[in-house]
Amino acid sequence: DDILIAVRSVLGAGELAGRRVLVTAGPTVEPIDPVRFISNRSSGLQGYAIAAALARRGADVRLVSGPVSLPTPPSVKRIDVQTAEEMKAACLNQSPFDAAICVAAVSDWRPAAVYESKVKKTGDTPPVLNLVENPDILSTISHMKGRPALVVGFAAETDHLQKHAEQKRQKKGCDWLLANDVTKHRFGGTRNQVLFLADAGVESWPEMDKSSLADHLAERVVNFFRTGNDR
Amino acid sequence: DDILIAVRSVLGAGELAGRRVLVTAGPTVEPIDPVRFISNRSSGLQGYAIAAALARRGADVRLVSGPVSLPTPPSVKRIDVQTAEEMKAACLNQSPFDAAICVAAVSDWRPAAVYESKVKKTGDTPPVLNLVENPDILSTISHMKGRPALVVGFAAETDHLQKHAEQKRQKKGCDWLLANDVTKHRFGGTRNQVLFLADAGVESWPEMDKSSLADHLAERVVNFFRTGNDR
Repeated sequence: DDILIAVRSVLGAGELAGRRVLVTAGPTVEPIDPVRFISNRSSGLQGYAIAAALARRGADVRLVSGPVSLPTPPSVKRIDVQTAEEMKAACLNQSPFDAAICVAAVSDWRPAAVYESKVKKTGDTPPVLNLVENPDILSTISHMKGRPALVVGFAAETDHLQKHAEQKRQKKGCDWLLANDVTKHRFGGTRNQVLFLADAGVESWPEMDKSSLADHLAERVVNFFRTGNDR
Repeated sequence: DDILIAVRSVLGAGELAGRRVLVTAGPTVEPIDPVRFISNRSSGLQGYAIAAALARRGADVRLVSGPVSLPTPPSVKRIDVQTAEEMKAACLNQSPFDAAICVAAVSDWRPAAVYESKVKKTGDTPPVLNLVENPDILSTISHMKGRPALVVGFAAETDHLQKHAEQKRQKKGCDWLLANDVTKHRFGGTRNQVLFLADAGVESWPEMDKSSLADHLAERVVNFFRTGNDR
């Protein structure tokens, strides 16, 4: 597999050869103070599988990743970040792209102030954690000058899956949205099941493992660049 | 090493044979909703090294551990927990102990309410995260009926190391407190440097790796049970 990829990259072969693709993956970590933080249970598995699937098809993949315990897929260029703001900066810094696949579970909020010293327990009332909204990376990329031809988002939902996903796709301005119910397929698992939303309508993809889902999506990306279609 | 431990456990040898010792290690994880949480950067390395060092000396070690990516040391009985409340319950559930070494970086606070569904970004103001104080496990163990003969705490500080550590030892009621400056030796590193506080006074231990520090402390525990002294 590695040899095949090496051969492809030398020959410029692969259906996505010459295409620059951004993939974001993993959680973001938002510091409260030097030791404490807010984060989420994203393992990065789905995003890494997608980066690998695109690279196998010859794409020049930039993987902007929160902290995860996963090896970098072959031929993928990985940029490590911690916070949502760092992730946004890294994405913009690497642009332009032909496609962007935003899989990272970006923290919607971060603490309004980061304490420079560890917050002490004073014995009085607990501190109130004031939050401020993080940059919306998917929306930023969907609306930026020099927008990628194809912008894909992921949505982790716990209820009203299709309704929340439809709203999110409209609001973010992305082309495709893949929505999964994280009460059924929990963060950190190896399998996934998604609704695939595009202008052409909604598809319910069957449950499969995350690498199969990655291949499935990568084939749709290949087809998009061949035909300009969502199917 | 494993064979030696196995032989010791069969023969009942080892300086701490017959002693039940509790070790807590790792971070706690306090859920905000099904996907988000508050945690800290504890790797569990120091606590696991101490559990291993005590088990090598024949102690019957119960390791109550937050989520970490470390193997369970040989002969150690490990109980996995997520939250501070689960950690406290597991510790009490396993008592009584001859000694308790509380190394875990327990979250001082947790969200007042855990949302059952993922909190949505509404576009309005961010949610305020109201926190409530978590149980103080070190203090609970230090003041419990059937208290262990020896209770040891760890304190991660970012400033005024000795002052904060003295205050903490008094307030918690533990016998020994090991305090380290986490701005110098960050969470997740392999080396450590501590102040050792006991009734007999303060010692400044030299910087060493975490397994050496574990052996150092284990020898003091051996000596305590032999002589009743802090030295």
